[in-house]
Amino acid sequence: MRLSGYRGRLREVLEEIGAEEGDELEVVTPDGQTFVGYLISRPEYADEDVLTIKLRNGYNVGIAFTEGTRVRRVAAGRPPAFTRGEIPPQNPSLPKVALVGTGGTIASRVDYRTGAVRPAMTTEDLISVVREVLEIARIDAEVLLSVYSENMTPKEWELIAERVDRKIREGYEGVVIAHGTDTMHYTAAALSFALQRPPVPVVLVGAQRSSDRPSSDAATNLIGALTVAARAPFAEVCVAMHHWHSDDVIAVHRGTRVVKLHTSSRDAFRSVNAGPIALVREGSVEVLAEGLNPRGSGDYRYESGFDGRAYLLKFWPGMGPSILEHLASEGVRGFVIEGTGLGHVASSWIPVIRRLVGDGVFVGMCSQCRFGRVNMNVYDNGRDLLAAGVTPLDDMLPEVALVKLMWALKRSSDLGEIRRLMLTRIAGEIGDRSEPVRLAP
Amino acid sequence: MRLSGYRGRLREVLEEIGAEEGDELEVVTPDGQTFVGYLISRPEYADEDVLTIKLRNGYNVGIAFTEGTRVRRVAAGRPPAFTRGEIPPQNPSLPKVALVGTGGTIASRVDYRTGAVRPAMTTEDLISVVREVLEIARIDAEVLLSVYSENMTPKEWELIAERVDRKIREGYEGVVIAHGTDTMHYTAAALSFALQRPPVPVVLVGAQRSSDRPSSDAATNLIGALTVAARAPFAEVCVAMHHWHSDDVIAVHRGTRVVKLHTSSRDAFRSVNAGPIALVREGSVEVLAEGLNPRGSGDYRYESGFDGRAYLLKFWPGMGPSILEHLASEGVRGFVIEGTGLGHVASSWIPVIRRLVGDGVFVGMCSQCRFGRVNMNVYDNGRDLLAAGVTPLDDMLPEVALVKLMWALKRSSDLGEIRRLMLTRIAGEIGDRSEPVRLAP
Repeated sequence: MRLSGYRGRLREVLEEIGAEEGDELEVVTPDGQTFVGYLISRPEYADEDVLTIKLRNGYNVGIAFTEGTRVRRVAAGRPPAFTRGEIPPQNPSLPKVALVGTGGTIASRVDYRTGAVRPAMTTEDLISVVREVLEIARIDAEVLLSVYSENMTPKEWELIAERVDRKIREGYEGVVIAHGTDTMHYTAAALSFALQRPPVPVVLVGAQRSSDRPSSDAATNLIGALTVAARAPFAEVCVAMHHWHSDDVIAVHRGTRVVKLHTSSRDAFRSVNAGPIALVREGSVEVLAEGLNPRGSGDYRYESGFDGRAYLLKFWPGMGPSILEHLASEGVRGFVIEGTGLGHVASSWIPVIRRLVGDGVFVGMCSQCRFGRVNMNVYDNGRDLLAAGVTPLDDMLPEVALVKLMWALKRSSDLGEIRRLMLTRIAGEIGDRSEPVRLAP
Repeated sequence: MRLSGYRGRLREVLEEIGAEEGDELEVVTPDGQTFVGYLISRPEYADEDVLTIKLRNGYNVGIAFTEGTRVRRVAAGRPPAFTRGEIPPQNPSLPKVALVGTGGTIASRVDYRTGAVRPAMTTEDLISVVREVLEIARIDAEVLLSVYSENMTPKEWELIAERVDRKIREGYEGVVIAHGTDTMHYTAAALSFALQRPPVPVVLVGAQRSSDRPSSDAATNLIGALTVAARAPFAEVCVAMHHWHSDDVIAVHRGTRVVKLHTSSRDAFRSVNAGPIALVREGSVEVLAEGLNPRGSGDYRYESGFDGRAYLLKFWPGMGPSILEHLASEGVRGFVIEGTGLGHVASSWIPVIRRLVGDGVFVGMCSQCRFGRVNMNVYDNGRDLLAAGVTPLDDMLPEVALVKLMWALKRSSDLGEIRRLMLTRIAGEIGDRSEPVRLAP
């Protein structure tokens, strides 16, 4: 009988009713509240007399097992899992799309031992679940990585870029990368600089809710991403996720303009300081942006490689500048600062920044406001920071600026050249100044 | 003739036409572009042959002075400045409101020598400009500080809290604090914890555009803030700024729920994970939130004091955990981490966090997503972080969590007590779990 961690009176009761992990239970508390969910092993941090079940909506709940709490075993065994069907024959007349799995919720399933979501499912599982995709493309799926996206590093970006480059050279008509959502926008930026003007779309996709939850967005997001890979007239590194207006519309965001703007909602991904470049609706791709890199573009450049000696710091009131000196002494060669407002930090930072820039360290300024562009000419403090050698990074998102700096540091050790690269628009990461940057929406 | 910094041929031309700083010039470039604006002194960072003028919209522009550039002096002297009128007699039947100036754009004017905006104007100047306010309240104005808000520190928060507390004890029916917008939300959070359940409204107000620009929001924001101070039925620490829907509506945000979400737009301030608590329209206050602290509330507590040994860090892919150890060795007693997604950092951080928490250092988790709440029970990594002793901070904004941690560290050196304080709702900084946190709007 699997009942890890349960002890004492609670364990006795569970044994009496013949419950084990994965069984569906109904728990009624003395004050009449009823919970139905799957029994999971007692988490380390939970008290001994707490019964932990995974509710049908996917969340875990701990219920104090006190005098008068009633527990009933509703159903045996595990909840219905995906059927690992064989992949049906593919249609040879459809565009050939590579699907590269890297982990995350979109390729994950719930572990009914611990109740946690684990990156365990293969991309083949996904295809077998979402059969509609077979009408969109001929799919070659493979699992490159299986990591939570918060564990991604520049090393994994390089692995993914290398694999996508290979798929492009092998003649795929589009590449889809299944990715955890936590840092998908950082990876999207990295691929935007590593795979410049690719000949086919490179589409990152994730899911905010795992595939076995009724509210999962895994299937619709994957269908949207494959549609872009197979049918879009443009060839951009982009992110395809639920659009906020409607559940049946997928928004396509430029890889250098997107962030995860909500912890849990399905429409968490939003373009910032720009609109989505396209929408996917009823199987077709509606292009919204102008000047996109066209499919079949002949000047593709593979420019991968990232130098991790860059650092992103968010400034706040009372934060001293000595952290910059410490990090530089540890080998950091460039900073992106999330300043306040139009791009400010406390005046006490100015001499430190001047010294660092004098030593060849890059210091770039973005804003922590999330929307808008820096403008360091308006206030004295901004002008003094410019004079000290800070590079204002316009409306580039701080996360994107960090990734770009890692990319630039790999390309040059000369401060002048790094500044030039940082201010050169490479993958749509700097906006058109003629358009005002509005707070979306 | 004031022409600081100008040399060579450009200086000769300016002298020929009799131009000096502050004069209005018209410049026509060889390709026919025309610029009209006020001559300002050559900025240190500008090339010698660049003529710098301040356009009427407030922005500075540098124009290359090449062969064929024509310059004409349009008008002499400075642009019209505010008239320092005497303050008219006040109406003794109106509510008595204290107006405390601390600096920032709302109390600033342009220096036509450098073109920069300086915090120079007194609050009296402001009243003389915005005469409408005299119909709202009997105003006692004073300048407490004159600093750019990026230079604010916990020390200034304490000074402001002390002054507001004095005004409350002196019997004012409302207090308005004019503040720079860059860090106004941090100060609003600090005052929310320092002045708990005050008997009268405490309203912070700023301006995104300085008072001498046609698009300035200084007057309307100030009128809105004074209306709240004089007339609101609630007594909350709040921020009054332009509402995004309409220019003639002022939104009132709870001090612990507001951020500056855009670098430059007039509607930059937004409530996050909550709606505004009220709107001000045509002189009246429309209350939107329930359960607000009522005016005249009898259980006011002055609980000021902040310990600066707290640190806010934003996590990003590849960021190592050694920074935590370094900062702890320098005396930091608590961290707020802006993790990814539902509240994650790389697994490599877990042993370091476990050790720090074991040593009594507080480690709290917020999300860098901007909207939503952390939930560390969904994924393995989150659960491991909980087991390592991380305190999940629900839907508290990271900026607010930092300020609250500084406040909590002043109150206790016991980790258990600090955790208890951080998770206790003191000033609306933690949301009601029954309401879903939506991405606004």
